[in-house]
Amino acid sequence: MVRILIINPNSTGEMTNNVKKVLASCTPPNVELHFLTCPPEGPAAIESMYDGIISTSVVMKYLKCHPPQCDAFLIACYSDHPLVSALREAYRKPCLGIMQASIFMALSVGRKVAIVTTTNRYGPLLTAGVRAMGISDSVFGGVVSTGLTPLELESKPHTEVDALVQQSSRKATQEMGADVICLGCAGMAHMLDVVQQAVGPDIPVVEGAKAGVGMLTCLVQMNLFTSKAGAYQAIQF
Amino acid sequence: MVRILIINPNSTGEMTNNVKKVLASCTPPNVELHFLTCPPEGPAAIESMYDGIISTSVVMKYLKCHPPQCDAFLIACYSDHPLVSALREAYRKPCLGIMQASIFMALSVGRKVAIVTTTNRYGPLLTAGVRAMGISDSVFGGVVSTGLTPLELESKPHTEVDALVQQSSRKATQEMGADVICLGCAGMAHMLDVVQQAVGPDIPVVEGAKAGVGMLTCLVQMNLFTSKAGAYQAIQF
Amino acid sequence: MVRILIINPNSTGEMTNNVKKVLASCTPPNVELHFLTCPPEGPAAIESMYDGIISTSVVMKYLKCHPPQCDAFLIACYSDHPLVSALREAYRKPCLGIMQASIFMALSVGRKVAIVTTTNRYGPLLTAGVRAMGISDSVFGGVVSTGLTPLELESKPHTEVDALVQQSSRKATQEMGADVICLGCAGMAHMLDVVQQAVGPDIPVVEGAKAGVGMLTCLVQMNLFTSKAGAYQAIQF
Amino acid sequence: MVRILIINPNSTGEMTNNVKKVLASCTPPNVELHFLTCPPEGPAAIESMYDGIISTSVVMKYLKCHPPQCDAFLIACYSDHPLVSALREAYRKPCLGIMQASIFMALSVGRKVAIVTTTNRYGPLLTAGVRAMGISDSVFGGVVSTGLTPLELESKPHTEVDALVQQSSRKATQEMGADVICLGCAGMAHMLDVVQQAVGPDIPVVEGAKAGVGMLTCLVQMNLFTSKAGAYQAIQF
Amino acid sequence: MVRILIINPNSTGEMTNNVKKVLASCTPPNVELHFLTCPPEGPAAIESMYDGIISTSVVMKYLKCHPPQCDAFLIACYSDHPLVSALREAYRKPCLGIMQASIFMALSVGRKVAIVTTTNRYGPLLTAGVRAMGISDSVFGGVVSTGLTPLELESKPHTEVDALVQQSSRKATQEMGADVICLGCAGMAHMLDVVQQAVGPDIPVVEGAKAGVGMLTCLVQMNLFTSKAGAYQAIQF
Amino acid sequence: MVRILIINPNSTGEMTNNVKKVLASCTPPNVELHFLTCPPEGPAAIESMYDGIISTSVVMKYLKCHPPQCDAFLIACYSDHPLVSALREAYRKPCLGIMQASIFMALSVGRKVAIVTTTNRYGPLLTAGVRAMGISDSVFGGVVSTGLTPLELESKPHTEVDALVQQSSRKATQEMGADVICLGCAGMAHMLDVVQQAVGPDIPVVEGAKAGVGMLTCLVQMNLFTSKAGAYQAIQF
Repeated sequence: MVRILIINPNSTGEMTNNVKKVLASCTPPNVELHFLTCPPEGPAAIESMYDGIISTSVVMKYLKCHPPQCDAFLIACYSDHPLVSALREAYRKPCLGIMQASIFMALSVGRKVAIVTTTNRYGPLLTAGVRAMGISDSVFGGVVSTGLTPLELESKPHTEVDALVQQSSRKATQEMGADVICLGCAGMAHMLDVVQQAVGPDIPVVEGAKAGVGMLTCLVQMNLFTSKAGAYQAIQF
Repeated sequence: MVRILIINPNSTGEMTNNVKKVLASCTPPNVELHFLTCPPEGPAAIESMYDGIISTSVVMKYLKCHPPQCDAFLIACYSDHPLVSALREAYRKPCLGIMQASIFMALSVGRKVAIVTTTNRYGPLLTAGVRAMGISDSVFGGVVSTGLTPLELESKPHTEVDALVQQSSRKATQEMGADVICLGCAGMAHMLDVVQQAVGPDIPVVEGAKAGVGMLTCLVQMNLFTSKAGAYQAIQF
Repeated sequence: MVRILIINPNSTGEMTNNVKKVLASCTPPNVELHFLTCPPEGPAAIESMYDGIISTSVVMKYLKCHPPQCDAFLIACYSDHPLVSALREAYRKPCLGIMQASIFMALSVGRKVAIVTTTNRYGPLLTAGVRAMGISDSVFGGVVSTGLTPLELESKPHTEVDALVQQSSRKATQEMGADVICLGCAGMAHMLDVVQQAVGPDIPVVEGAKAGVGMLTCLVQMNLFTSKAGAYQAIQF
Repeated sequence: MVRILIINPNSTGEMTNNVKKVLASCTPPNVELHFLTCPPEGPAAIESMYDGIISTSVVMKYLKCHPPQCDAFLIACYSDHPLVSALREAYRKPCLGIMQASIFMALSVGRKVAIVTTTNRYGPLLTAGVRAMGISDSVFGGVVSTGLTPLELESKPHTEVDALVQQSSRKATQEMGADVICLGCAGMAHMLDVVQQAVGPDIPVVEGAKAGVGMLTCLVQMNLFTSKAGAYQAIQF
Repeated sequence: MVRILIINPNSTGEMTNNVKKVLASCTPPNVELHFLTCPPEGPAAIESMYDGIISTSVVMKYLKCHPPQCDAFLIACYSDHPLVSALREAYRKPCLGIMQASIFMALSVGRKVAIVTTTNRYGPLLTAGVRAMGISDSVFGGVVSTGLTPLELESKPHTEVDALVQQSSRKATQEMGADVICLGCAGMAHMLDVVQQAVGPDIPVVEGAKAGVGMLTCLVQMNLFTSKAGAYQAIQF
Repeated sequence: MVRILIINPNSTGEMTNNVKKVLASCTPPNVELHFLTCPPEGPAAIESMYDGIISTSVVMKYLKCHPPQCDAFLIACYSDHPLVSALREAYRKPCLGIMQASIFMALSVGRKVAIVTTTNRYGPLLTAGVRAMGISDSVFGGVVSTGLTPLELESKPHTEVDALVQQSSRKATQEMGADVICLGCAGMAHMLDVVQQAVGPDIPVVEGAKAGVGMLTCLVQMNLFTSKAGAYQAIQF
């Protein structure tokens, strides 16, 4: 049995539930999913680098008192979230963010990836995050923002949200030349069909939480662990 | 049930068996592995780009007459093997080579990957192959060659082979600064423990066939398919 | 006397003749051109990576039985055709594709090269091919596709073809900022004047077959040979 | 008839003669070589960026008064010599430096180029020059300096010079992994055999003056000219 | 007291005065600015690489006869002006061009820099100049040209000039995604408010002469000097 | 008057004093330095990414309650410290880390920078930090670690520390080819002379706190502010 702890690093329980629902239908056999929502002193959404830092500090404090019973960690926030690095330093258990997982899966089925995301601030942040993974511009087409905040994905009328997401997705394929799309927000996890419809049946659309569960399952089954020889050397924690 | 066809693109059945044995102990539940060895008119080992081309042409001709009953393809040759591209053009089913799979898995647990491989010709070829994936030098440390041919891995005395592989592995971590190692030949699939012993318990060692099975299982479970909008547009085949 | 074997790696003799005609008027003195069309079991046009592989396998088999009497090889297909690598492994004689030759010549007279080509699948393929040569984006502007297939260059009405090629050429200079254009298909070899007219007298237009003949002549006169120390080490063939 | 003006941008006539001798044996048919040595107010050797600037200013002033009767220019100094850019701005006639020509020829016969040169200051200068051509580190191995000045190539005992050049050449192939070598100084043009002997018969060695004559011959025969649409727009001169 | 010699490398005294006026209001305390206009045999404006070379040769000859009494040099021409390299070779005193200074300052307050400049020839030249500094495309958005020559900035009606500069500035932020703008011509030094108005109060606008004075002041106060160990080794001058 | 708040993001007051002493002798006129040591709930030293996150969260909480009276922030920790990004989001005041400032200054006086630092974990972390600034490998030579922790710089015998730092510095210049050195730890701020002695008088050595004070002074005098249009858009704080 592979036990994966899925951490929503913001304090909005609905978003955790959203991810849980998306994963319910397709959890691999022999995999057990556990969920953790950031305690309420963390931010309601991750909209800045500062939000990422605070949520990391809050989640790490929680894990210190409540040692996790799991084989791997998945951070359910589509960003270069600092919690990924912090957990890699603190544990040997494999740890991925949904951004990293989705990019690797996308590069397995296409040659030019683009990310469709929320606010326009995420343009430079996700671009920097993908570069920090060591992915070059030869296979990365860029980021398209809908302009919506993560919370507006839920609060705004669905037809309006869908229209904006579809328009951004078409921009990614038609203007950026992407041949594979990543859904760039945990709060978009349920919108795969909406995007697929926009880009047509020849372009795969990758949802990061599923990608993360699959990759971590594989890493655990291979007995792989986070390297402790370079950037992720063990810390006192 | 996920059915993966593992293709050994050379005609040496022992190498297929070698991979089969390595995978036997850790096939994920609900996954069925099928194996295909390149028909005898293909090369006995893939030691050049020409070998890769001929083996692709032989395997493709075989598949034309024997339509594969599977959900995904794994090419069990550690190289930028042209069969990967050919199958991606010919089918929508996901297709990975063990090089690609091992690199993605390695980048999930470390920040600087090096490949330990066989002949020194594979130095420039694998370096070019990793670059063609869009992986930049910021996370790729390079290739170390043992100088052995793929077939010598079996024919030479095991102690000699082990010593050379261990020496190369230590060079990868100590001189190249790698914090994660990929086994750079399908014929090295059973040598994970040998390498692990050389590099110590803090450095993960990635075997590509297992990595490929895991990633393809995930891709199939996510209903992902090879993009048909860019480089892999459908062909008459 | 320098003898160059120009290989059309598809089986369409008209395309070989097209190249022959273009070269007739400007073969350098002391150079003898020989032509080989891919035997009929090869593809009629190179429209995919699979086509490239099959044509390589067919041409190599032919050359095995009919040892070439020449000093150098030119592959008359505008792509990163695998026959270039295969011949470099099999022989010491210099070998170029028309893509490589045209890029080097273009970079000798301009600072930003763009390629005007046929189908849109060639966009990602040629981009990858130029990167594999080690040419960075600082001097490569990209690829513009007319949407025509190689065979349609001949079969469609000339005025329609010319208009599409001219429109693409202007896009390359005006939108991509290219200051030099490469004709991106052997089948476009006779269209230099058409493109020149579109881009005006200040932008050089490079035809790859002529560029290849010139560069190979120079390589042979310098007694240069394909390196046998790295990726192109000799093969049993 | 193709007329190439070979400009030695330093004022040392012996170096012009050296190049003349090297080219004598292998000038292509129908090509006429003319030679110009920098007038005496220019520097005796190009050992700094300042030398390059002064020699450019002196040569340009000379050409203003003595309009050149030629079809193309070759600058016989192994560096990113500013005279190349100045002539490209001032004329439509093709212009190459021996560095550029040798790099393009080297990349036609190998996959990893290294330059063997004189003083260690040329390490960073030639590296920057090759990068400015748009050549990436994937195919460029670097520069090895002998520590000799250009003028010491002639003034020091030949056995000592040969030994240093051979040692540097072996370093380029054995430590940098180069599979092709460029002779990195016009004053080394006659040392091709010395270097070939050091690196063995499988590694091509490229001499830039011959490469330049060959490439310019090809450019002129193709009626190509320096682009006037980008960086090299025409100047009042 | 820090004494900075600001060299206008063209012979147009009005441009020197323009820069002097801009700096008058904000010279740091304890800093003394000296000004040098290129002697009249130099070009009236730097519009080409040739102009840069001639102006370098004229200014260097002047400095040889009139040894400068200063602690640092600032070259007041927005380009990769060769005088910067020549002075770095000739002296240990720190030397910057306004391009370099403005880029470093811009990268201190934003993540994507764009340059607004004059003629369209400066597009490729400034792009190459920024790359030569080692700045990658991840933080450099590109160059927007107004189409005006440096001298037209003064001679054309101000309202027309302002409108063109503002339009280009908005293009830089809206189409290139720049979050910080550099004024790309010494002759635009007084237009900071004009550009600021166009791009709005959230986007910083960097004027290079002020940036250069500030950085050189800091370098001198830190007792830093131009490295004499690599590319800028001392020359006989 | 320019007021700069220098924040030591660890809770070790001695380190703040160390920096204060180094700056005492060379504060520019009209500049007022204020110092803040991280409150005691922060880490005693920044030895991991986790330390950086916790210290950011602690300092930000402090600043929320004690609004800073300053014009600019300098973070006195040699790393890609997340406090830099957090402050840039929270304020318009310019903010630099000593790593960023030292790199920009180093690139103003040399062409190949190397960093001499403490523990070997900082090798990959600083390399990633410099890349995140958009600095390419063409001007960045890499990182040399002494193996000492930041705290051991003080606790170990001075002769032992000096010897290790000098040995690493020579490695940076002799093996990496650096022509300028950055002191890679706030705790090494007083060791400039020690390093200068090791590398000789031709290689500049850059201390980051002084570099930061100088650059921020310049930014404030130019009225520049952190861009609010891209990655650093304002946050609720």
